[in-house]
Amino acid sequence: MSESGPGLSGGGLFGGGLFGGLFGRGGAAVDDHAWLQAMLDTEAALARALERAGLVSAGAGAAVSALAVAGRFDANEIGRQATLTGNPVPALVRELSAAVPPEARDAVHRGATSQDIIDTAAMLLARRGIQAIEADLAVAAGRAAALAQEHEATVMAGRTLLQQAVPVTFGLIAAGWLVAIDDAMAGLARVAADRLAVQFGGAAGTLASLGEAGPAVAVLLAEELGLQAPVLPWHTDRGRIVELAAALAGVGAALGKVARDVTLLAQTEIGEVSEGGPGGGTRRVGPPGEHRRGGSSAMPHKRNPVASVLVLGCTKRVPGLLATLAAASEQELQRAAGAWHAEWETLSDLLRLTGSAAAWSADLLGGLTVDAARMRANLDAAGGWPLSEHVAAVLAPAIGRLAAHDLIAAAAHSAEAGTSLTDALLADPLAARALAAAGIGRTQLEAAVDPAGYLGASAEFVRSALAAHRQRKGDQISER
Amino acid sequence: MSESGPGLSGGGLFGGGLFGGLFGRGGAAVDDHAWLQAMLDTEAALARALERAGLVSAGAGAAVSALAVAGRFDANEIGRQATLTGNPVPALVRELSAAVPPEARDAVHRGATSQDIIDTAAMLLARRGIQAIEADLAVAAGRAAALAQEHEATVMAGRTLLQQAVPVTFGLIAAGWLVAIDDAMAGLARVAADRLAVQFGGAAGTLASLGEAGPAVAVLLAEELGLQAPVLPWHTDRGRIVELAAALAGVGAALGKVARDVTLLAQTEIGEVSEGGPGGGTRRVGPPGEHRRGGSSAMPHKRNPVASVLVLGCTKRVPGLLATLAAASEQELQRAAGAWHAEWETLSDLLRLTGSAAAWSADLLGGLTVDAARMRANLDAAGGWPLSEHVAAVLAPAIGRLAAHDLIAAAAHSAEAGTSLTDALLADPLAARALAAAGIGRTQLEAAVDPAGYLGASAEFVRSALAAHRQRKGDQISER
Amino acid sequence: MSESGPGLSGGGLFGGGLFGGLFGRGGAAVDDHAWLQAMLDTEAALARALERAGLVSAGAGAAVSALAVAGRFDANEIGRQATLTGNPVPALVRELSAAVPPEARDAVHRGATSQDIIDTAAMLLARRGIQAIEADLAVAAGRAAALAQEHEATVMAGRTLLQQAVPVTFGLIAAGWLVAIDDAMAGLARVAADRLAVQFGGAAGTLASLGEAGPAVAVLLAEELGLQAPVLPWHTDRGRIVELAAALAGVGAALGKVARDVTLLAQTEIGEVSEGGPGGGTRRVGPPGEHRRGGSSAMPHKRNPVASVLVLGCTKRVPGLLATLAAASEQELQRAAGAWHAEWETLSDLLRLTGSAAAWSADLLGGLTVDAARMRANLDAAGGWPLSEHVAAVLAPAIGRLAAHDLIAAAAHSAEAGTSLTDALLADPLAARALAAAGIGRTQLEAAVDPAGYLGASAEFVRSALAAHRQRKGDQISER
Amino acid sequence: MSESGPGLSGGGLFGGGLFGGLFGRGGAAVDDHAWLQAMLDTEAALARALERAGLVSAGAGAAVSALAVAGRFDANEIGRQATLTGNPVPALVRELSAAVPPEARDAVHRGATSQDIIDTAAMLLARRGIQAIEADLAVAAGRAAALAQEHEATVMAGRTLLQQAVPVTFGLIAAGWLVAIDDAMAGLARVAADRLAVQFGGAAGTLASLGEAGPAVAVLLAEELGLQAPVLPWHTDRGRIVELAAALAGVGAALGKVARDVTLLAQTEIGEVSEGGPGGGTRRVGPPGEHRRGGSSAMPHKRNPVASVLVLGCTKRVPGLLATLAAASEQELQRAAGAWHAEWETLSDLLRLTGSAAAWSADLLGGLTVDAARMRANLDAAGGWPLSEHVAAVLAPAIGRLAAHDLIAAAAHSAEAGTSLTDALLADPLAARALAAAGIGRTQLEAAVDPAGYLGASAEFVRSALAAHRQRKGDQISER
Repeated sequence: MSESGPGLSGGGLFGGGLFGGLFGRGGAAVDDHAWLQAMLDTEAALARALERAGLVSAGAGAAVSALAVAGRFDANEIGRQATLTGNPVPALVRELSAAVPPEARDAVHRGATSQDIIDTAAMLLARRGIQAIEADLAVAAGRAAALAQEHEATVMAGRTLLQQAVPVTFGLIAAGWLVAIDDAMAGLARVAADRLAVQFGGAAGTLASLGEAGPAVAVLLAEELGLQAPVLPWHTDRGRIVELAAALAGVGAALGKVARDVTLLAQTEIGEVSEGGPGGGTRRVGPPGEHRRGGSSAMPHKRNPVASVLVLGCTKRVPGLLATLAAASEQELQRAAGAWHAEWETLSDLLRLTGSAAAWSADLLGGLTVDAARMRANLDAAGGWPLSEHVAAVLAPAIGRLAAHDLIAAAAHSAEAGTSLTDALLADPLAARALAAAGIGRTQLEAAVDPAGYLGASAEFVRSALAAHRQRKGDQISER
Repeated sequence: MSESGPGLSGGGLFGGGLFGGLFGRGGAAVDDHAWLQAMLDTEAALARALERAGLVSAGAGAAVSALAVAGRFDANEIGRQATLTGNPVPALVRELSAAVPPEARDAVHRGATSQDIIDTAAMLLARRGIQAIEADLAVAAGRAAALAQEHEATVMAGRTLLQQAVPVTFGLIAAGWLVAIDDAMAGLARVAADRLAVQFGGAAGTLASLGEAGPAVAVLLAEELGLQAPVLPWHTDRGRIVELAAALAGVGAALGKVARDVTLLAQTEIGEVSEGGPGGGTRRVGPPGEHRRGGSSAMPHKRNPVASVLVLGCTKRVPGLLATLAAASEQELQRAAGAWHAEWETLSDLLRLTGSAAAWSADLLGGLTVDAARMRANLDAAGGWPLSEHVAAVLAPAIGRLAAHDLIAAAAHSAEAGTSLTDALLADPLAARALAAAGIGRTQLEAAVDPAGYLGASAEFVRSALAAHRQRKGDQISER
Repeated sequence: MSESGPGLSGGGLFGGGLFGGLFGRGGAAVDDHAWLQAMLDTEAALARALERAGLVSAGAGAAVSALAVAGRFDANEIGRQATLTGNPVPALVRELSAAVPPEARDAVHRGATSQDIIDTAAMLLARRGIQAIEADLAVAAGRAAALAQEHEATVMAGRTLLQQAVPVTFGLIAAGWLVAIDDAMAGLARVAADRLAVQFGGAAGTLASLGEAGPAVAVLLAEELGLQAPVLPWHTDRGRIVELAAALAGVGAALGKVARDVTLLAQTEIGEVSEGGPGGGTRRVGPPGEHRRGGSSAMPHKRNPVASVLVLGCTKRVPGLLATLAAASEQELQRAAGAWHAEWETLSDLLRLTGSAAAWSADLLGGLTVDAARMRANLDAAGGWPLSEHVAAVLAPAIGRLAAHDLIAAAAHSAEAGTSLTDALLADPLAARALAAAGIGRTQLEAAVDPAGYLGASAEFVRSALAAHRQRKGDQISER
Repeated sequence: MSESGPGLSGGGLFGGGLFGGLFGRGGAAVDDHAWLQAMLDTEAALARALERAGLVSAGAGAAVSALAVAGRFDANEIGRQATLTGNPVPALVRELSAAVPPEARDAVHRGATSQDIIDTAAMLLARRGIQAIEADLAVAAGRAAALAQEHEATVMAGRTLLQQAVPVTFGLIAAGWLVAIDDAMAGLARVAADRLAVQFGGAAGTLASLGEAGPAVAVLLAEELGLQAPVLPWHTDRGRIVELAAALAGVGAALGKVARDVTLLAQTEIGEVSEGGPGGGTRRVGPPGEHRRGGSSAMPHKRNPVASVLVLGCTKRVPGLLATLAAASEQELQRAAGAWHAEWETLSDLLRLTGSAAAWSADLLGGLTVDAARMRANLDAAGGWPLSEHVAAVLAPAIGRLAAHDLIAAAAHSAEAGTSLTDALLADPLAARALAAAGIGRTQLEAAVDPAGYLGASAEFVRSALAAHRQRKGDQISER
């Protein structure tokens, strides 16, 4: 597999460390370097904004920007000093100030407070993360669309409460995944467009230290960073954070469902899909003889649905992180004592895990192998029972809908295991009499239990989903 | 019951039972009757849609609609039978079918499965709840706007990490509340317009029992109910539920912050606001001699900020409910085994509690008393220290920004308690020398610590928030 | 109402209303009446304690106790007045005071504050709820023990990541359920014994209004109610609530796992267990012709695992409620502004849902049908592959453990679907050569893939779990 | 790095990186190295257990143990390979196997599956974390005890719903903190003693690959590691994890409350406590001229309660993590597809954050400065109103308890701001008449509003808490 090559989505990037490949794939992961750079980008943009507003000398913006490079700073040392003030900004500002030429020093952090820098940096990290997630989701959606199209007519058992129900098509299932992913992308796009805003308010949200010039600088800062300029500083109005977190949770919701479905359909006894087709799990890492995706340390035959499992390993953590951010929205007066601090790592984790789920999902859907024959076989093995609704509908004109329902329910209850629906009905004296009276024989029953004849709007739904998907993609392109 | 006259917002409505007045105020509370009616409304609309589609006999829609009245059904009995199937719909359908004339019976529940009815009913309850919440939020926002305008120039201490910081105005605080509430309303409006959709898919999402007609009936059903028609049935795609929950959590975030601020500003030692001005807590319920809002069973002098406390009592429960709904989005194949069931009461609670928080907030802001003199007195008692940033700025041109910062920090550290900033600086040998060298004397220092001279963009921000509020209200009106 | 005759566990009790039968089964449900009675029990016990302490006149305790009957009070009216003070106690106290004879009036609420009454009432409700849950868990554990014993040698596929793994026995699975339920019961018992304590501190935790007598009255109150007497009033120390909630979450964890396993094993394609054997789902409610447990409104053949689904519908809500209570533990000074209020309904819901999960679990395990033949058939259908670990172990002495692992993994990878492990190895040139060299032929391979020969400690583990269960039950009896 | 000398608690240790000093203080932080070492410790102990059981050659245990050193392994490389199998164990085992001498190779991972290693490693990390947390909590509790003793008679305002209530002592508040911390420590100790158990079950929990010897090896493994030997393998019974998480949440609950109280009492307008006494915030880091703990980047005068804020920044994240772990307890059959994976980082975070909160709390309480004079002044400024309960009690014998309550409530309502309770009552015609009739004059009223005369059981409660604390410490010592 290619961890890196050009043209690949973020899905090809692996985070470092023991767990980074599992829970930190994709480009949304946020580490110290990313935080440092985002804070420095904010300070640099502020310096340029101040210069454009005429508040600092010409060239100060460029001077600060040139030095606002994360690699120049020692995260450990800044972190150590952060214990004095409760956040890393004061130390970063001291070091940045010390580095810039004296004539530009006045442009460093002017008008700002620590929260301005951290909150705006968080917005930059969110934007970067959303872009990475969108790239992986686009891959995933594209593959879901292809599966929906390819399997528009692939009949399989529907399953409700994990019991076989009336038939569906695999195309319809894939179309459902597609719509969910597309909706999640719409949620991300909306937050990215409307709610990622500069935070710039100074010590208590008045920008007092900039005198009259504050709001103008805020607008210029937003311009420099390509973020929204908010109506007001939002230091203790955390609606934006909650909306951002919710949009990420929307992604988690869509992807967790896909992965849950795959783990269920991939069960040994069902075996209708498997991970690891071309481009997916079979691609080896390293020389032959090394493990294959999905292998087990104890059981050499196993081919585990690793990508789905890891998607779920990421998405199952989203609700708790979302709750933390929602609870942290109760922030006191002009700066919260703790609730704000609780957001930083939580938001980082949420971006990272959602991003990793998206990267794994792109991989999962990219490599999903569908076994249409097994789908059909599983359905056939059910002896027509999943079509009981259809049979009831065939009986209904003669004996009424509820009576038909109850007749079949009774036959189901008394039938021996393994008996088909047709046989059970014909063997049941009460049912046989009703069927005879209605002129319904084995032929009609066999027709009624043919799944291909009872797919309803499956194909139409698949086409609607694909049309909506194309529409959305078209809209995105025309918006650019 | 209604605490007050006609024309009042839902804020005047109290839920029943021991805790209903506290946690179930406003019109968003969802009880068995509301659920029954919403399910029946769905069944009735389906009957009408089927009739319009020509699938059932003329008049069937009206016949079912006439009987689809919650009061005709026994929730306890339906609930008892629900234990057999795991949800109340089958029993409700049996009873409804039995009640309608035989010729209309075919229009009852045709094409539908239990989940269609419950999910669509939930959407109706959500719409109703959102409307009620919006009404109360509109009152709250209106009052926040009035406070912002009235107190545009009311100076008070800013407080960060609960310590006095540079001054702000109370108008700016109220403007922050206003923007947060307006944003939360925008979130509700978006979900109401875009994401409340009919669920109609039949047994496994194919609408097979309606043959070719399924999608058309779905569209008619959506028309009948005034809900969106989705691209696909969304039975196990719970993005809508997550978005709805998130929008409600956005309301909770906005209101929890307001209430937290009020409890803090109302503290005995701060006393800058209190609940219970005209229209608020002082209005009595019942005859004189009964308790007054905010009284204590043990301490007769107390005037507790009851409304704020109850807002927080509601909003603090939102994150956990949101997490439950987000986690429940991982739903299996064509119907979830448990995750779907976990949504019903959770969503009801979320609507109820958000609604109650909104109702109490309308009351809270409607009755908030602001003590501008106390605000000023608290600020003055701080001896100019909250203006240290301004003093540093005054010193900066002479000695540099960081040196000025450190000078004051040192003076703050060594000053006796109660010494003013001006006195402390003039008494500190190092500072005194720096001041003298810079030609800054007591007069300039006194000017620098005047809070009215250091409000920055407070007034401009207030005006921006009010303009945005008016714009939003205008947009809403023109949309109607 | 009771579905069945006397002698049944709480599992037979159904809560009222539309959803009460689903989510409010068992005896742990908490409604307004239960809250009222628990508050009144606290007031009555306080009156008796005051009398025993000699602080009020003789007979006052009995006089108050005689009137402390929930049925005498109107929850709606008390709830209405609760909106004035933020809790229902002041209104309840007024009404109770008005009802008692003048000479006993001084014994009503003396020394207490509202929080004392609500918190102590919550402890009483928790005790009652725990007892009900324990009764249902005892039934569930007893049945799990019986299943473990009965199926000690019933071979089935183990399944990891939902893929077939080495074989296990159904007895071992049931033993795992048993141990988890027993551990959850131990957690409940510990909280019930050690952490359910009277809260009695008066207005701010000093019991000042009782002068010197406060602590003695607190001890007497604890005696009267059979609750612990705490070292200190715990009004804003919510560790007890968190521990109680955690113990309930422990129950949810144990039962959710059981129900998840049953839904998976009951899948149509697996079919190894089903709900509704004798004593379970087949018992009818109402006349013949009505629905049967597990029926579907749309699909007459279905026999859904309703009890498992409803267990999950309850347990999936537990983590969110637990989080709310944990977050609410951050309570301010001598009474919290909102966090305390957020606990009341949350704790009620947690007791109710845990209780309902326990009641449904008792039912579920009581009616579980095990299909040992299907278990064996599913395992046999896997062609020996789940035993690959064993075959690797057989090969290991000859070729080394890792080489054996890799050899089988390669054979698994290249084998055609449907080929048995034995055949695949013999057909693979590399493997065949290794086998030949090691002197391992078809006979040894067939022996290695016999699941009955590779059950390890399954039987011993079952016996250990049963012994531990008997020990625990014995301990409980001897403690009484 | 260590801020201070040897002998200090973990409170002196700072985690690395940008945020490690804030959210990763103390010794409970879990990084890749710690995970690797814990997994290697498990593998090494297994090798020794196998040797003791006679299953591998003599010396194999020592040979494996000698190489089981985290520093020998590359976490990034193992993490990269973990993406193939979904967890890092297979790659670690390959590398470890390759490193050990051939004759010891058979002792590596024999009988185990990946989950055995990760779960047992998690238990080791939990034990290590608990020990570190206990050490910091012991410091915190010791300081709380000292404060309780020192301030047994330090009178201050009680505050309920953030309004002044009857007086308390600061000693009583500190005693409340002490009891909560002691209870949290008891919870940790219980989990450490009873619930940290080896997980060892092999591929599906049967230990089949060890034949008869499995259970014996499990017991030896537990002995080697000093962990409990469980009744059964607990691979998909996650009660232990939930209990561990709950015990950590109990710590968070206790510490969050302390920190919330300190932020409130440290407010500028209240000023009764401040952080940074000797041993606390005033200790400088680095050369003079650098920032001081609690400084602000914008406002040089500020002295923020940094330790409290950071405690809250940690504890506010606990409920969400707890919810994630509780939700993850629903694990499928013999190994969960995702829920297990979701635990790893979550548990690491929970240990880290709880540990950091404990470390900061030790620091916070160690450096807390108490301003008894300000406490008294704040109380006196309230004009006797907080004593209204006492005055009511003085009036009660003459006019009845409720009438006394209402009389004072009315006087409170009509009194001008700033009027004392005594003056208000004497000025109120109704009250004055009642007082005169009862023979109660200014002198008696003045006595009734003396807070020192209305402290109830405060001192006794403090002594009880200290006695319980000494008892607990004594018990701990005698247990060793």
